Amino acid sequence: MSKKIIIVGGVAGGATAAARLRRLSEENEIIMIEKGPYISFANCGLPYYIGEMITDRDRLLVQTVEGMSKKFNLDIRNLSEAIKIDREKQTLSIRKVDTGEMYEETYDTLILSPGAKPLVPPFKGLQEAENLFTLRTVPDTDKIKAWVDEKAPEHAVIIGGGFIGLEMAENLVHRGVQVTIVELGNQVMAPLDYEMASIVNKELKKHGVNLIFNDGVQAFEDQGNKILLQSGRFIDSDLTILSIGVQPENDLAKKANLEIGSRGGILVNEQLQTKDENIYAIGDAIEVKDYIQQTPAMIPLAWPANRQGRLVADHIHGQPVSYSGTLGTSVAKIFDLTVATTGNNEKLLKALQKDYEAIHIHPASNASYYPGGSPISLKLLFDPNTGRILGAQGVGIKGVEKRIDVIATAIKGDLKVTDLADLELAYAPPYSSAKDPVNMAGYVASNVMDGEVSVFHYHEIADLLAKGEIIVDVREPKERENGAIEGSINIPLGELRDRLNELPKDRPVYVHCQVGLRGYLATTILTHNGYQAKNLSGG
Amino acid sequence: MSKKIIIVGGVAGGATAAARLRRLSEENEIIMIEKGPYISFANCGLPYYIGEMITDRDRLLVQTVEGMSKKFNLDIRNLSEAIKIDREKQTLSIRKVDTGEMYEETYDTLILSPGAKPLVPPFKGLQEAENLFTLRTVPDTDKIKAWVDEKAPEHAVIIGGGFIGLEMAENLVHRGVQVTIVELGNQVMAPLDYEMASIVNKELKKHGVNLIFNDGVQAFEDQGNKILLQSGRFIDSDLTILSIGVQPENDLAKKANLEIGSRGGILVNEQLQTKDENIYAIGDAIEVKDYIQQTPAMIPLAWPANRQGRLVADHIHGQPVSYSGTLGTSVAKIFDLTVATTGNNEKLLKALQKDYEAIHIHPASNASYYPGGSPISLKLLFDPNTGRILGAQGVGIKGVEKRIDVIATAIKGDLKVTDLADLELAYAPPYSSAKDPVNMAGYVASNVMDGEVSVFHYHEIADLLAKGEIIVDVREPKERENGAIEGSINIPLGELRDRLNELPKDRPVYVHCQVGLRGYLATTILTHNGYQAKNLSGG
Repeated sequence: MSKKIIIVGGVAGGATAAARLRRLSEENEIIMIEKGPYISFANCGLPYYIGEMITDRDRLLVQTVEGMSKKFNLDIRNLSEAIKIDREKQTLSIRKVDTGEMYEETYDTLILSPGAKPLVPPFKGLQEAENLFTLRTVPDTDKIKAWVDEKAPEHAVIIGGGFIGLEMAENLVHRGVQVTIVELGNQVMAPLDYEMASIVNKELKKHGVNLIFNDGVQAFEDQGNKILLQSGRFIDSDLTILSIGVQPENDLAKKANLEIGSRGGILVNEQLQTKDENIYAIGDAIEVKDYIQQTPAMIPLAWPANRQGRLVADHIHGQPVSYSGTLGTSVAKIFDLTVATTGNNEKLLKALQKDYEAIHIHPASNASYYPGGSPISLKLLFDPNTGRILGAQGVGIKGVEKRIDVIATAIKGDLKVTDLADLELAYAPPYSSAKDPVNMAGYVASNVMDGEVSVFHYHEIADLLAKGEIIVDVREPKERENGAIEGSINIPLGELRDRLNELPKDRPVYVHCQVGLRGYLATTILTHNGYQAKNLSGG
Repeated sequence: MSKKIIIVGGVAGGATAAARLRRLSEENEIIMIEKGPYISFANCGLPYYIGEMITDRDRLLVQTVEGMSKKFNLDIRNLSEAIKIDREKQTLSIRKVDTGEMYEETYDTLILSPGAKPLVPPFKGLQEAENLFTLRTVPDTDKIKAWVDEKAPEHAVIIGGGFIGLEMAENLVHRGVQVTIVELGNQVMAPLDYEMASIVNKELKKHGVNLIFNDGVQAFEDQGNKILLQSGRFIDSDLTILSIGVQPENDLAKKANLEIGSRGGILVNEQLQTKDENIYAIGDAIEVKDYIQQTPAMIPLAWPANRQGRLVADHIHGQPVSYSGTLGTSVAKIFDLTVATTGNNEKLLKALQKDYEAIHIHPASNASYYPGGSPISLKLLFDPNTGRILGAQGVGIKGVEKRIDVIATAIKGDLKVTDLADLELAYAPPYSSAKDPVNMAGYVASNVMDGEVSVFHYHEIADLLAKGEIIVDVREPKERENGAIEGSINIPLGELRDRLNELPKDRPVYVHCQVGLRGYLATTILTHNGYQAKNLSGG
């Protein structure tokens, strides 16, 4: 029996659902409604068009209304806004954006994929700020690019240091603009933990980006050319990008009395149905479960949206489907750095009061003797009782997202940290080491789980010093010239076995080196000789 | 209680075992015997030193005898050959290579890590061929490099198109040498299937490498300056590298009456013990189990050697250990290409008469609208009954080994092909697409498993044509100008729904396009309209 299916929203999840629905059946009537002028555009590519990394605007339009309509035999209506759902009559009221004309369509099944919109608080002077933009759609992109092309701004201010903010920073620097990022928190890129985000700060500063932390907008003045910050400080701006986050487009769902979560996401079951079984919802507009903790989460990313679009189409066609949560695997290019994450970060685990352990390693992306390698800072979070992998973060120049992808796959395969050592990964000198960084992380985590080495963390150092604890630096004296922990004792690893008598056995000895390996070796030597040694995680 | 442990062989597995043994205990006496002058050298880096990609020879020496002895408190004896094991008395006879002096050492535990040596058949003229080399050790490397530096050979012949052969080809081309590869089989890189290896052929030819297949050496003439091939053909050579394979160094084990497999590998149990529980064996010298089929295999790679070295040390220290087989994940850089594989290939599955299905896809390494992407040819082998992943092969310029690593991890996590679609991998335009190539492979394989689309394979085409079957090319007419299957009917995808009446419903219709996606869409359209359609796997 033929069905009439309406999809609200023609980007990412909506477009994926439409294409999959047609591949599963030639019979159904499929209507796709899109408020904006374009469907299925490359939303993740928009900053790069402004930065002229992508020069051909047509490349942003992955599918055109005409092309996709024909290829998949769809009724696609752009510039059409879904206004109201009548759940009893199973009708959707649609408004033509250009004429204002209203009409109704009946549906058997409705898929809501309206996305999310940029958060814009009612700042004083917002309306008058002509140089203020948000970035979400192709028209937004056109406006920002035209402003850069025509006004040649000297200085841009980016409010919010998330993905879009940082990608815009890079692309504006690429256009010769001086960029300042203003971030309310104490770090950029919220998915990272503080110490990992600090590496990103360095990269941003290296490329001339000015960073202001723990501060936010109080008001826009002088048509937006001056920004008054909460600290009372004024900064000049020729172009301001507001990128402090997004909020789900939930108006339609709210008005239809569908359930909405505490953070505004439309609530759905594991089959992605709202409480009305004829209405599905997908993408940035819905609340998902965090894959690791199975707690509610808002994770506006492209992969989950596309995956959900596919699953909804399968479920409509009677296939058993279950969306088990979003892991939140993500990656961003920040100038020469790649920053990638998967699963939970330490901030979240701490907030949830979970039992976790963290290890840091700094292996080379490929064999150290082969040119072109560079260090990767890799952090792995795990449950020390079960060995379950809880999350990972990587920052570096090469091969970073590869390791995060492998760990994301290990999580889905329910592998433990101890299993990471056993992953047989591809090795040749241009690509990796015979022990891949993921193997290394597995070995180090296994050592912690076995109690073979105790570790301590960078954030404990100040406390230890205050308490007068013994900190041993096992680097060579020459390395200490570039900085050393004040009050630490220097015993190079090679001399340690001969100088054991300099250390006490009746209290803990805290060991550190540059990247953690020599500290680990020193800790095992001390432990085997009866000392209570702990190694600094990650050096 | 302190133990005396002797390790025979100081590279890869042996060196790893030694370091791990010391980290686990400060007490044991650990002696490492190495026949050659160097321990723990970068065997995978040797071709790149000859090619001057690595310019500092010291970088090849990962650990020196002195440095490693001190760091790990080891008794390392290089230029020392293990001659004979007396298993009853638990002694090892050792010969000093430079003086010939013999002596005995007792042991509690012995670890054999002697490696493998290049296969050198007794070709006629072998002894007189001064320009003939094999490559396994640092001295081999020095000899070849000196020959290239001093003799400036114009033309080199490489016998055998495996990993070392191809890496040597690239590095000699890099040194300005004209290279010919002579290969007894019909393809290079045995871990790949024929159609995947064909992509490598193109790359080799593009860089001026001359390929001779289905031919081998009959004799070396004129001090090796002329090579007579089995076909009767003569080729000139100023430098010949013999790289037709390796054979395990099993003399010591054989003489000690330890068990040896049919292909010469030392037999061990899952704890890597020989039939003498005080004697372990690891690395290229042992026979392992193929991880997928659990059948005997010889897989001389660095990762397994290192992993085994670690596990042996753990087992000696009473930890439960089980080596469950080698997956054989590998990667090689062949000029601009990356070639990576994991698990079984189609040749093996066919030979073992296993029930398998293969799919081919050709996705872009990253979002097509972002610069720098390039296609990856990805082949996935799986069991169509259970969905078990059996193997994968990838060839392309960027992001190839990343996808193979993810699939290798999925195999270890016992994920099915259908689960590959559900892997949440890192996406941003410079790195991937919202549907990663691995997700795509999962979707395509799922479609085959669901019976949603039937596929046929490139090797069936000649047969189908001979039988007069209907082959429909759904590409645009313009694309056919670059080549088309003779006798195929051209119906572009966009016109298919309007031209269904041109095709018969009472017999199969074989569909193909360029890369497989349009063929897949056409196949679903035909199937839903009552046709018996099959899509060419991978276009």
